[in-house]
Parts: sequence; structure tokens; C-alpha cells
Amino acid sequence: MSSGPEIDAGRLWQRHLAMADIGATPAGGVHRLALTDEDIEAHRLLADWAGPRGFSIELDAIGNMFIRREGSDSSLPPVASGSHTDTQPMGGRFDGISGVLAAFEALEAIDEAGIETPHPIEVIAWNNEEGSRFIPACMGSAVYAGAEPLDAMRAREDGDGVTMGSCVDALKAALPDTGHRDLGAPLAAFIEAHIEQGPELEANGNIIGAVTGMQGYRRFTVAVTGEASHSGTTPRARRRDAFFAAMDMTQALRAAMLDEEDILRFTIGRFAIPGGGISVVPGRAEFTIDMRHPDAATLRERGDRIPQICRENAGACEVEVDEFINQDPLDFPQAMISAIETAAGRRGYPHQRIYSAAGHDARHAAALCPAGMIFIPCWRGLSHNEAERAEPEHVAAAAQVIADMLIDLAQER
Amino acid sequence: MSSGPEIDAGRLWQRHLAMADIGATPAGGVHRLALTDEDIEAHRLLADWAGPRGFSIELDAIGNMFIRREGSDSSLPPVASGSHTDTQPMGGRFDGISGVLAAFEALEAIDEAGIETPHPIEVIAWNNEEGSRFIPACMGSAVYAGAEPLDAMRAREDGDGVTMGSCVDALKAALPDTGHRDLGAPLAAFIEAHIEQGPELEANGNIIGAVTGMQGYRRFTVAVTGEASHSGTTPRARRRDAFFAAMDMTQALRAAMLDEEDILRFTIGRFAIPGGGISVVPGRAEFTIDMRHPDAATLRERGDRIPQICRENAGACEVEVDEFINQDPLDFPQAMISAIETAAGRRGYPHQRIYSAAGHDARHAAALCPAGMIFIPCWRGLSHNEAERAEPEHVAAAAQVIADMLIDLAQER
Repeated sequence: MSSGPEIDAGRLWQRHLAMADIGATPAGGVHRLALTDEDIEAHRLLADWAGPRGFSIELDAIGNMFIRREGSDSSLPPVASGSHTDTQPMGGRFDGISGVLAAFEALEAIDEAGIETPHPIEVIAWNNEEGSRFIPACMGSAVYAGAEPLDAMRAREDGDGVTMGSCVDALKAALPDTGHRDLGAPLAAFIEAHIEQGPELEANGNIIGAVTGMQGYRRFTVAVTGEASHSGTTPRARRRDAFFAAMDMTQALRAAMLDEEDILRFTIGRFAIPGGGISVVPGRAEFTIDMRHPDAATLRERGDRIPQICRENAGACEVEVDEFINQDPLDFPQAMISAIETAAGRRGYPHQRIYSAAGHDARHAAALCPAGMIFIPCWRGLSHNEAERAEPEHVAAAAQVIADMLIDLAQER
Repeated sequence: MSSGPEIDAGRLWQRHLAMADIGATPAGGVHRLALTDEDIEAHRLLADWAGPRGFSIELDAIGNMFIRREGSDSSLPPVASGSHTDTQPMGGRFDGISGVLAAFEALEAIDEAGIETPHPIEVIAWNNEEGSRFIPACMGSAVYAGAEPLDAMRAREDGDGVTMGSCVDALKAALPDTGHRDLGAPLAAFIEAHIEQGPELEANGNIIGAVTGMQGYRRFTVAVTGEASHSGTTPRARRRDAFFAAMDMTQALRAAMLDEEDILRFTIGRFAIPGGGISVVPGRAEFTIDMRHPDAATLRERGDRIPQICRENAGACEVEVDEFINQDPLDFPQAMISAIETAAGRRGYPHQRIYSAAGHDARHAAALCPAGMIFIPCWRGLSHNEAERAEPEHVAAAAQVIADMLIDLAQER
């Protein structure tokens, strides 16, 4: 296959290291929440790399970034690859950015090989995939695909009251020489590379996973209201302790979500007693619920019980349960899964089919065009952790598969 | 008793209202944490009121404030009354400040009556009673009495890394015309007025409580360390979820602290998942424990079990338990209790003996001199809450009893 584009593994790894510097944490991770100064700097760095190649850049109204190599037929929509630049709070060096860099390396390799394609080819950096600073996750791809409304998402505020809209404006101001992309503009195909965030590839000794689908997930916020009172003077019988009520809820939820097969994922990732004091019986407690399952019926049946379980365990307190995401499981097209297997096989990369337990932007791209995902191994399956790690040869393999697939897809009419 | 000092109830109430403006919350409470700009402004206002009377002011090295009316015998230590100006986060208008204002009103009434006393009389505003911004509570009185070391307490940091020492320096800078008070300088007597923070006086129709003693209390911080990981990809069997481990601990502690008689107080007032994200299995959880009981043996026996209960419920996580306060129950001197009853009786105020479930600065003053406390009712016993409320005639009654007692105590040699 020496006639195809050949990616530069050393250059790709250097770019991983350069990106890991932006928002670097002392323990070797990255803290680069969506459209913070650090995340805008990461976009700026991509633009700096794109410029000398003559790739053009477009931004849309929700902050997605498109780096484009023109095709020979201007009537054709782009084939695209990418992921996201933002990270979890105190997250890792690979989640998201690795898929953006693999796509960018693929685009450079294609350009260096001087291959002309009918379709334009694009690298996409979807905005706010993590949903850590602004709820919900996958906001950029969801708005692009029409799954979330633009105005409501631009109005979303972070913990300091800063709106997403003002952050998108700041991104545009930081990248003045960019064009405008309409939301929902057609894509011919989308392929996303990502670390697996699970242990399967590593355990099997495979380095490419052809992702077959993605489990569904539901997310809730729960707010418990009791009455703040003095911890020394208030007898138990007179307390309306929001923390203890929340504990009763979370323990009951945990029991109700227990899955002996260990397939259902149930997580309480945020929990707060706003304004709590050591000697104050909590008057308020707030927490989040994230539940996931590959089966739509299970997700519906178990998830629908959550509000009732909270109410039944509220004791003397009040509780409000708000569901803010409900996504069904998704299957990727068989043709895309096969194409990934073929591409990996041609390069001699050991590969397998794999199911995605995590959510990704490819979910929303799949509503617009044929979409697929490639996983590479990550150390111990660890992710959303500063110790997250992937091997240079694995990120290179992903970039090579992406390059080969983009060429194939961009030649099709 | 018309020959004694007569307090001015209207002036006292106006001062309550003025103080409630400093750090006022929209719901009618006060948020004025120790030595914040707001708390320093409260000290400044006291100084503004003291100036025209010719009262002198001293500050000590831990930020306690002493407002002094001189006596005729400079060899005698002061008799004193006071409490604290700081509040709980989103706390009430009376907790602490009411005792400072009662003492100040008493001092003004004595001054207006032109009564000469051998002992000087002082109003004390003890620093950082609440312990909400800087741990531990009652820091100012504890350092003054030698129960906590000065340097370690000045080195304590708030959540933003600001030290108590720098805050004390800021207080001194804001009050440049003040003298210096040595820590532990003798007091002849100390009497503290405070809202009850419980329902007993209100229920019995009494307006003065002669406090007989104070229950003991122990406080702990608990830090649980697991491993942050992806909420979608990490099976239950591979999780080291610090939140669920903390839940198991808190539920087990709650069961172990359950007291059918409802005398033991067990509170988890703060709980946090630092850096938590909706889709991140928590790698860390931190919470506080406050437990109180009037009986020293019960406090010892039950409290000693806390670290072991945490360890037994840590599951796959690690846990560190740190006890940072352990105070035995305290009895006030009978002479002081009787003096309060006598003073209340002379003014015709319905009164009773009462036990304090809360901790107060008078605990530490009691190590230096004969000390006592006066309680007044508060609405529904509610405290550490923005809705905390006391009646104008009750705060006036406290000020009058304080004035009468200070005169009696300051005449003694």
C-alpha cells in the first residue's frame, strides 16, 4: 500500500506532546475545559499548523471548527474526521484530542502525497464534547446535527455565569481569519478515532477496534431541599437533613441499578452541599446521575424508576429530579465497520470489533451521514483520569487507518 | 432597680439592624465569614460606635477585639461580656452578634449612668467563632485561653489559601488607632449572651436562660481516595468509587451514632467530590463529622469508633480520618448561674436554667475566669439559617441582665 498516504508517526507524537502542554496538570494530565483560554489556545495551535498547508478554516455558530483541504469537485460535501479538544476536569492527554490529531495527521499525509480527491476532506474539532463546563455533553455535534437548539445552547452558563455564546464569540475573535460554516451543512462521511477508555483492546492485544455501536445513556440532576439548622441544638426528630435524605436516595438508587451482569453503568459523579458548614445540618444537597446501557428497553425501564425512587426516599425533605439527556443506543452502519476492518487489515494492524460504552460526537454525525469510529487501546482502560495513556504506535496506527479511509471515501462519488 | 444602668432598647435594635446590613443575604440572613471584608466592616462599625464614648480598643494577635471602659483601680483585671461578629455561611442575624451588641449596649448604659467601677469593663468580639472559613471554631477564644497554639492558628488557610494571620493583619490595618492586648491577659469574669438556638425557652415562655453547662463535641474530617475513571466504560467490578465508599461510611456511621433518646447529635455538614464530573467515577470524596453529647463517657466511647467504622466501609478505597476538635462537656460555676437567675429575677424576666447544646466562646473564657452564659429565645429554635429570628424585647432583656451583672461584678474586688 505504499501508493497511499503515509503518516509521520514522529510528527504526530510531537503534536500530542505540544497539545498536552496546554492546560497541563502537575500529575501529567490535562485540565482544558471547553472554550476556556486553554481550549481556545488549543484551537489556535491547530490553526497555526493548518496555515502553512493552505488548509482553510471555518467556524459555526456553536463553536465547531472545520479544517478543510479542498477537493476537485466543488459540488461534493466533505468527508470528515475528528473529535474534540476539550477535556474532563483534571482529565487525560488523549481523550478527544487524539482523534483530532489523528485526523490532522491524515490530512497532512494526504496533502504531502499530493493526492487529489473529488470530495474536500475536513478535520473537525467538535465543541464541548465533555459537557464539564457547560451541560450537556456533545453539545457542538448535537447542535450541528439539529439534536439541540442553537439559542438555548448558546445561552447555557458555566459555574461563573459565563454563557457558551460569549465563549464562541471569544473563539471567533481569537481566530479572525476563518470562514463561516452553516449548522447542518452536509457531510459525505464521518470517521472518529478515540482511545477505547476501556480494557478490551489491551487485553486482547489488538490495536484497532472497529466500533459497532454505542450504548445509550440518561442523565439527571437531583436537588434535595430540607432545612438548615444548628448541628448542636437540633434533635434528630426535628431535623430536615438534605444530606441524609440524599444518602437514602443514592443508596436506594444504587440497589435498584445493581446489575449482576455488570453491564448497566450507574454513576453519581457530582455531589454538593451548597454553602455547607461543619456545624450546620444541611438544608440542600445536589447531585448528578449518569446511567448507561446498550439495550434501549433496559435503559427505559430502569431509568424511568429514578424519579420515583428519589421521591420515596426524600423523608422530611423535598426533591426535584430533572432529566437532561436521554439518548438511545446507536448502531453504526455495517459498511463503515467493514471499511475500518479492511483498512486495518491492509496495514497489518491486529483488530477486532468492539462496542462503545462511552458517548462520542460520532453519535450525532451519524444522524447526518454514514459514520464510524476507530478505537485504540489505552493503558489499563483508564480514562477521565490524569494518568490516561496511549502508546505512540497506537495513535500512529489510528492516523494511518484514518488517512487510508479518508482517501477511499473522498474518491467515491 | 432604677438606680442601676438602664439600657436603651430602641438603640440596641437599631444596632442589630445596622449590623444585619453587613453581609446581608437576599433571604434576610447574613453571610459574614470571619475576617472577610464584611466582618472587618462589622468590627469597624463597633469601633465607630465606641469612639464617641471614649472607650479604648485593643486587638490581640489572633484578632480578638476588646472595647474597654476604664475602671478606677488600674491594678484590677476587666470584667467582660461579648460573643462574636462572624456568621455561618448564609447564616442568621443574631447568632453571635447579638451577644456583642448586648454587651456594648450594657457598656453604654453603664457609661450613661455615670457609674464608676473599680474594675474596667470590656466588650469582647472573639474572632472566628463559627470556624466556617478557618478551622477550628472558637479559634479566637481558644488561642486567647491557650487551648490552641497561636502560630499554627495564624497559619490556617481558608479555601482560597488566605491565612488567618494575614486576615488579622488586615483587621489591624483597618483599625489603626487600637492598642495591643497580650494573649491570656487576665479577666475577672466573663458573661456571654446568645440566642438559644433551640426551642426550649420559646416553648416554656421564658425569656432568660441561665446556662448550666455545655455539651462536649468532637469533629473529624474524612478523606476517601479511590480512582477516577470513565463512567461509561468502567464496569462496577473495576471501579474504585470514592463517592460510594463514602456513602457506605456515612450510612454505617449514621447507624452507629443512632441514639434512641435523641440526645447524641451526629451531623455531616460538608461533603464534596473535588473536581467531580457528571461522567467521571469519583476518585476522591471529602466530608466532615460533627458529633456532640452532654456526657463525656458517651462522647468518648461513640466517637472513638468513628475511624474504625470508616475503615471497615472503605471497600476498594483508602480513607484518612483526622480528628481536629475534641472538647469535653463543661459545667459553668454555680455562683455565675445563680447570679444570672438573681439578675433576671430582679428585672422580672421569666427565666429558667438551661443546658447548651451548642459550643460557645464562653467555654474557653471559663478556663481563665468565672464565666457564664445567658440565653434568649429564638423563633422555632432555628439557627444557622437565614430565617433565624429573635424578638427586640428579648435582646433588650439580655442587654439589661448583662448591664446589671457587669456592674455587680465590676464592683467586686
